[in-house]
Amino acid sequence: MKTLIKNGTVVNATGTAQADVLIDGETIAAVLAPGSSLLGFDVEQNVDTVIDAAGKYVIPGGVDAHTHMEMPFGGTNASDTFETGTRAAAWGGTTSIVDFIVQYPDQNILEQYQAWHEKAAGNCAIDYGFHQILSDVQDSSLTAMDELIAEGVTSFKLFMAYKGVFLSDDGQILRAFQKGASNGAMMMMHAENGAMIDVLVKQALEAGNTSPYYHGLTRPWQAEEEATHRAIMIANLTGAPLYVVHVSAKQAVEQIAAARDLGQNVFGETCPQYLYLSLEEQLGASSEEWGSFEGAKWVCSTPLRSKAEGHQHHMWQSLRTNDIQMVSTDHCPFCMKGQKDMGLNDFSKIPNGIGSVEHRMDLLYQGVVDGKISLPRWVELTSTTPARMFGMYGKKGVIQPGADGDVVVYDPNGHTSIGIGEGRTHHMNMDYSAWEGFEIDGHVDTVVSRGRVIVDGGDYVGSKGDGRYIKRGLSQYLI
Amino acid sequence: MKTLIKNGTVVNATGTAQADVLIDGETIAAVLAPGSSLLGFDVEQNVDTVIDAAGKYVIPGGVDAHTHMEMPFGGTNASDTFETGTRAAAWGGTTSIVDFIVQYPDQNILEQYQAWHEKAAGNCAIDYGFHQILSDVQDSSLTAMDELIAEGVTSFKLFMAYKGVFLSDDGQILRAFQKGASNGAMMMMHAENGAMIDVLVKQALEAGNTSPYYHGLTRPWQAEEEATHRAIMIANLTGAPLYVVHVSAKQAVEQIAAARDLGQNVFGETCPQYLYLSLEEQLGASSEEWGSFEGAKWVCSTPLRSKAEGHQHHMWQSLRTNDIQMVSTDHCPFCMKGQKDMGLNDFSKIPNGIGSVEHRMDLLYQGVVDGKISLPRWVELTSTTPARMFGMYGKKGVIQPGADGDVVVYDPNGHTSIGIGEGRTHHMNMDYSAWEGFEIDGHVDTVVSRGRVIVDGGDYVGSKGDGRYIKRGLSQYLI
Amino acid sequence: MKTLIKNGTVVNATGTAQADVLIDGETIAAVLAPGSSLLGFDVEQNVDTVIDAAGKYVIPGGVDAHTHMEMPFGGTNASDTFETGTRAAAWGGTTSIVDFIVQYPDQNILEQYQAWHEKAAGNCAIDYGFHQILSDVQDSSLTAMDELIAEGVTSFKLFMAYKGVFLSDDGQILRAFQKGASNGAMMMMHAENGAMIDVLVKQALEAGNTSPYYHGLTRPWQAEEEATHRAIMIANLTGAPLYVVHVSAKQAVEQIAAARDLGQNVFGETCPQYLYLSLEEQLGASSEEWGSFEGAKWVCSTPLRSKAEGHQHHMWQSLRTNDIQMVSTDHCPFCMKGQKDMGLNDFSKIPNGIGSVEHRMDLLYQGVVDGKISLPRWVELTSTTPARMFGMYGKKGVIQPGADGDVVVYDPNGHTSIGIGEGRTHHMNMDYSAWEGFEIDGHVDTVVSRGRVIVDGGDYVGSKGDGRYIKRGLSQYLI
Amino acid sequence: MKTLIKNGTVVNATGTAQADVLIDGETIAAVLAPGSSLLGFDVEQNVDTVIDAAGKYVIPGGVDAHTHMEMPFGGTNASDTFETGTRAAAWGGTTSIVDFIVQYPDQNILEQYQAWHEKAAGNCAIDYGFHQILSDVQDSSLTAMDELIAEGVTSFKLFMAYKGVFLSDDGQILRAFQKGASNGAMMMMHAENGAMIDVLVKQALEAGNTSPYYHGLTRPWQAEEEATHRAIMIANLTGAPLYVVHVSAKQAVEQIAAARDLGQNVFGETCPQYLYLSLEEQLGASSEEWGSFEGAKWVCSTPLRSKAEGHQHHMWQSLRTNDIQMVSTDHCPFCMKGQKDMGLNDFSKIPNGIGSVEHRMDLLYQGVVDGKISLPRWVELTSTTPARMFGMYGKKGVIQPGADGDVVVYDPNGHTSIGIGEGRTHHMNMDYSAWEGFEIDGHVDTVVSRGRVIVDGGDYVGSKGDGRYIKRGLSQYLI
Ligand SMILES: [Zn+2]
Ligand SMILES: [Zn+2]
Ligand SMILES: [Zn+2]
Ligand SMILES: [Zn+2]
Ligand SMILES: [Zn+2]
Ligand SMILES: [Zn+2]
Ligand SMILES: [Zn+2]
Ligand SMILES: [Zn+2]
Repeated sequence: MKTLIKNGTVVNATGTAQADVLIDGETIAAVLAPGSSLLGFDVEQNVDTVIDAAGKYVIPGGVDAHTHMEMPFGGTNASDTFETGTRAAAWGGTTSIVDFIVQYPDQNILEQYQAWHEKAAGNCAIDYGFHQILSDVQDSSLTAMDELIAEGVTSFKLFMAYKGVFLSDDGQILRAFQKGASNGAMMMMHAENGAMIDVLVKQALEAGNTSPYYHGLTRPWQAEEEATHRAIMIANLTGAPLYVVHVSAKQAVEQIAAARDLGQNVFGETCPQYLYLSLEEQLGASSEEWGSFEGAKWVCSTPLRSKAEGHQHHMWQSLRTNDIQMVSTDHCPFCMKGQKDMGLNDFSKIPNGIGSVEHRMDLLYQGVVDGKISLPRWVELTSTTPARMFGMYGKKGVIQPGADGDVVVYDPNGHTSIGIGEGRTHHMNMDYSAWEGFEIDGHVDTVVSRGRVIVDGGDYVGSKGDGRYIKRGLSQYLI
Repeated sequence: MKTLIKNGTVVNATGTAQADVLIDGETIAAVLAPGSSLLGFDVEQNVDTVIDAAGKYVIPGGVDAHTHMEMPFGGTNASDTFETGTRAAAWGGTTSIVDFIVQYPDQNILEQYQAWHEKAAGNCAIDYGFHQILSDVQDSSLTAMDELIAEGVTSFKLFMAYKGVFLSDDGQILRAFQKGASNGAMMMMHAENGAMIDVLVKQALEAGNTSPYYHGLTRPWQAEEEATHRAIMIANLTGAPLYVVHVSAKQAVEQIAAARDLGQNVFGETCPQYLYLSLEEQLGASSEEWGSFEGAKWVCSTPLRSKAEGHQHHMWQSLRTNDIQMVSTDHCPFCMKGQKDMGLNDFSKIPNGIGSVEHRMDLLYQGVVDGKISLPRWVELTSTTPARMFGMYGKKGVIQPGADGDVVVYDPNGHTSIGIGEGRTHHMNMDYSAWEGFEIDGHVDTVVSRGRVIVDGGDYVGSKGDGRYIKRGLSQYLI
Repeated sequence: MKTLIKNGTVVNATGTAQADVLIDGETIAAVLAPGSSLLGFDVEQNVDTVIDAAGKYVIPGGVDAHTHMEMPFGGTNASDTFETGTRAAAWGGTTSIVDFIVQYPDQNILEQYQAWHEKAAGNCAIDYGFHQILSDVQDSSLTAMDELIAEGVTSFKLFMAYKGVFLSDDGQILRAFQKGASNGAMMMMHAENGAMIDVLVKQALEAGNTSPYYHGLTRPWQAEEEATHRAIMIANLTGAPLYVVHVSAKQAVEQIAAARDLGQNVFGETCPQYLYLSLEEQLGASSEEWGSFEGAKWVCSTPLRSKAEGHQHHMWQSLRTNDIQMVSTDHCPFCMKGQKDMGLNDFSKIPNGIGSVEHRMDLLYQGVVDGKISLPRWVELTSTTPARMFGMYGKKGVIQPGADGDVVVYDPNGHTSIGIGEGRTHHMNMDYSAWEGFEIDGHVDTVVSRGRVIVDGGDYVGSKGDGRYIKRGLSQYLI
Repeated sequence: MKTLIKNGTVVNATGTAQADVLIDGETIAAVLAPGSSLLGFDVEQNVDTVIDAAGKYVIPGGVDAHTHMEMPFGGTNASDTFETGTRAAAWGGTTSIVDFIVQYPDQNILEQYQAWHEKAAGNCAIDYGFHQILSDVQDSSLTAMDELIAEGVTSFKLFMAYKGVFLSDDGQILRAFQKGASNGAMMMMHAENGAMIDVLVKQALEAGNTSPYYHGLTRPWQAEEEATHRAIMIANLTGAPLYVVHVSAKQAVEQIAAARDLGQNVFGETCPQYLYLSLEEQLGASSEEWGSFEGAKWVCSTPLRSKAEGHQHHMWQSLRTNDIQMVSTDHCPFCMKGQKDMGLNDFSKIPNGIGSVEHRMDLLYQGVVDGKISLPRWVELTSTTPARMFGMYGKKGVIQPGADGDVVVYDPNGHTSIGIGEGRTHHMNMDYSAWEGFEIDGHVDTVVSRGRVIVDGGDYVGSKGDGRYIKRGLSQYLI
């Protein structure tokens, strides 16, 4: 299968080019000056498919480095399976995800690694890699890290919250980071001070404050800032590279920025929800259907932050200044009925998570339209840096020969209305959209995954199992 | 003329690719997966020249955005003409320079613009653009800015030192920056507090401290930090983008970093001399031939800084953290005999400048070898960011279809010994080398400029006049 | 004359004491445990006057270290003479001022010193010292500094604004600071970038923006922050102690705080107007009488800052954190009719200044009532630190044996309504009050100056000429 | 008993006065102008004792707010009892201590409070107050806080290290701080990340690194900086005032300074050992007697820091800038034989502590001689601020009527040689001196405690039981 994407504007992380892209089989074979011939050879006549991208952007497929497909959590599972979730991702122009293998304290991480392969294999619409969660870090887990790195799982997530479930204490974190410093793994951190939060949650519930809004109030910015700083210091002591997931508080960003200015390998990811949504408007929302429980739709951790305090504004700025390096979704959807409503009378029982894997590319593109980020920065934040950060660059995150044929044709003159309402777009397995009513001045027209067109004119034309496992290398982004 | 550079490792600002590069005429026509055929078409058989880059790096030609060829200064001229200087640049893998059109207070900048065209036209080995110096900013100069932008001169340099020669006062700077904020020009600043320095120089000379070492002592870091901060504040007030040239003091870097963290468009360039050389070792050197006047070889402004204070170390770190965004040379050579020796008895009469245009790519590559920067960062600092910063990206600074055929084949297994001593390399028109004895674990093998091989296996094979004027656009790097 | 102030709460900079204060002649003779006897000796029976301060605060008389009595400026004189101004000060609980000897560029500072003595001698209600203004610093002025220090003028003010009137360039400042570093003088700075301001003023007037509000807009915080930083760097280079007068911008405070945290002897004073008044509410005010020229009442430099930007809030905080060390008034009153109205059609012609010398103690006490500063901090900010900063401590700024008998009895249960309206208090020689309508939950009951009661129950009972010259020593506050 | 201290220079926190001090009974009755009469009344003839302090400093008795007399720790007790320790303190010019009531996890704090009263009562040479240690904070402890405050124990110390012994987790700390925010207690913190340290200690011992030097290496600055920041954030969230004990790392100081600059009530204490002693010189020392175990003499926590990293230098600077507010000793002595030697083969078994209660006033006075702090700052750091910080001001920390008659006559022309060697001074119950060979250019001549001379010409003339319990109020130092 040979495909030529012609006449488009190729966008990469440093700028644009008027160029055609030739994909041969699963791989990009050439990037060519526009026109039908190379040294007299008529390229267009020698391919199977020609996609005309005139007036459109041709970008490397999106890389979403933080998803939780069918994640078991709090007695239920995230509502998107690898099948439904990756299909929705494809619709939105994302051609790679890195999902999290869960380990609970009594589980063996190598077995979990196998289990996650079984969940994903044959089900995915797009390519997928894995991070490994290390819960309550044990010696056996540290030993297994090296094996997993050999298998292409080169990043390990620890938690400073969720006692008894995920939490590792600072001694455990220190030991894991020492290991990471020696084997080159990227150490990822859920940076919230769980001990503080647990007290605040208990106090809120005892005071009868049970609505979703209190989810936000009981996870204050101080808890995030503190844990972020602590993780940075442990990384500083050990020399491990550190990647802080789902950064939402501006004060946490300042901690990351300060460490980076001193030359430490510290990185931060934010998510679309922390750029657009807020404590006041979403967590504090009410509706006819749900009353003040409406806010449950946006219960995730770290929580949405106060707009009055300016976190969202600061987060966009951080994307410009590179104090935050990339945007993932932390996609972890739950339905309101049968899942979120487990916490109707107790916000702490609401499964944590928002579904966004489908909309990340669009939501960030709107930042380009709104003048908040540049066009190349869009590609850098959503594709190139994620690929570099997690050892996939060369195959993913860039349009160049030898790269996988993961290409998106994005139409800046198109339009996307998000939501489950009529005339809107939503393909994730949820009974609501966290992004209902968001309007995007752009549109994902065509998605090519390893050389195969899987979305065409907005229609999904791929098959379950198109996606393959990405065996990742070590981070290519260290400073 | 069709050239194929095959089997090399193409390095760009975000990573590497195993790819062949096809240049057709003056322009890159394609970047291709390695191998002799494209969809069965034998590329190699259809080109005029094949360069085998196996085991070597294929990089976009270097862009040196700060040179002063044959600059008139202090009654003499910089010793490299456009001819000798650009040829030396070519030898070192640099295929574009941006030189400074000088205006002295009584001169008209449009006439100066023409005069510089006359100096350069037909003499250059590589492509060249111009920045415009604005001395003692007048209304007529502000008006002329728009015309020059239309001519491709989109950046304007002001001085906070050199009273009566170049200096503009803060009111003049403010007005120029207002203009820059409205027309999109990049405002460049020589940031040293001249009034402070003039007093210190006078006092040093009165005290009989006449040797080159006092050049350093009379331009203390406080004078640079102060002016940098002041320029940042004026830029903040007006909204103009600011580019600080030849940053050498770590405290100045901190000012730039602080402004950037707040989202201001402030940028900084450093030079190889501030990464490798020091007040103690070079400015304070003596020799049999010159005694303590030996230090005159390294008299430049801003001056070399104290190693004991750690400036050099911090400057490398800034390159990693992107607190400093690029590396130019501030190439401005003078011979010891007949030029530098004008200051034998008075350091303030020593023409200011160091010649480095030939060695920038090598000296920075050594930073890769030494583990101070990554391979892609090398290309970003020396080529991609300079091109973006000054409106040349797309044509310069990147290997992609449509770009000028400016390509360097760099051999990581080669070696370069710098200097005028036997067996060493030095092509600049100077009677000494500021880099005598520096050893580089790499070598510029082949240099292609707009499709023409001008350096081949270390030999210069180009012609005077190969280089053309680069009509630049506005900066493509604003955050 | 022997006076006993009994039963009061003595407040000093570190706390309070229940104690009686005995003044013998001009000097405090003892601070005693309350009660009528000392070792059986009946003190009360052996004094001439007994003041009962039960339920009241007994504090060292206020020290206002920044006033401009009858200052010649812009063709007129500040409307308070030494007589009227110091009498108003007395009413308000201030018993010492330090006024500024003006030097214009063509004047000799020793002659000016004599001239100021003549203005003040025999006219003052309270004690007075002098700072010397150095305009356009010349060699002769530097030489004269030592003589003036011997005369008790140990602090010298320079200006970074008012070109042709007061301004010194950075070279002049550097030389003056070198002198200060060697002779121990405190270097004071009016820190605003005059060159920037001059351009902005000219542009505003050309655009027809002539009302007082534009006085504020044309002196933006960037001009103050910049000059503050510049002065700090020159002080850093020379080693001179630096005292920044009338700090109003929060960003300028941050510069001072940063320097202090590094151990540099940098100090800042603010004034009541920067704590309470704002660009929006006062400079932007209009009235029936004056229309938009109403704002002229509050034209002073540095200007009132924007409340929306939070400067006032930050300034109070700085008083708590000791990032700002003391509060003076910069008392420089002008009448609306015949003085301020010189600028009816051109804000730049409005004489700069506000009259507050009478109200400083009250306005700061209100900060105690409002919980913004503590009671001891009130005394420290208004009396103890000013005395230490400017070499008067021991005689002024403290209640202890050997100190001058400058004592104020302040009633926390009293009330003061400020203004020229009926039932209000205002004794300064102005045709309006800048503080009209301010209500203070406290009252100056009794003021004793060198042992003499000069204000009694709110009535002025002193005489012209009570006040004497204070021959000051070097600063006692250096860190 | 009536005592007159005449002709001395009284030093307080803001400056000096030539004044006589009259003590009547236990209380200061008056501070008087020097000379033998008050209004004709001959004071000197009416007192029992006259102390001539001509040429000497008269200062408020030292307040050491951090001691551990006979503290039970690791199976032994600190070697100074309340008797021996307070007597040594008296010798050194300290007239008040605040000691720590220890609670171990299973103990009731009210019972402990009683137990400590029993240890101290009738044994102390000087006055003493108590802080309460809260170990592993329980509900019952929080409730008891209010009772203890009523008893004069108004400050509570928590630990972030020593798991199973003292450590509270962040949730416990949060709850205690909430309590402190509501009842006004000062929350004290031992800020070291115990979890990190425990891992490092275990690893060091497993690697055979058992000498005292490793005590320092296994408690790196990152562990202190991290915990300091964490405590600040919990204080920020709750609004509690925070006092960080024994700050030794410059990075921890920076955290404290940053919080203070934002107006948060955060305070820090350092100790003489962190000003003078270092990792390299003391912890890393060896001797003939002890070999590398010599370093055990200086095993304390936080540990001595690296001189090469500049902590000691920075700590002195922090005393000048008030980023650190006071100096205590953390007096906790152990003998080498029978106590420290428990850790001969395992540094982690060495009882932690240094004995300094006798030398604090002298060691800090040497800072005055060396030009590191001013004379008033000496008194502020060692007496006035400790008294204010812990609710004793008015009675302690100042020479003013109504204050306890705690006065020290200090001779700047005297000399003190510290140590157990011949001709040296050492009265603490230890078999070595941590300060052997330190020479002080000053001498404690006379110590008066509540009106009673207890040290006279260097001889202890007091009695066991002179000291009384200090019932403290809430902090008087909050900003
Ligand atoms: Zn998470
Ligand atoms: Zn997640
Ligand atoms: Zn930064
Ligand atoms: Zn230059
Ligand atoms: Zn002024
Ligand atoms: Zn003034
Ligand atoms: Zn500070
Ligand atoms: Zn302790």
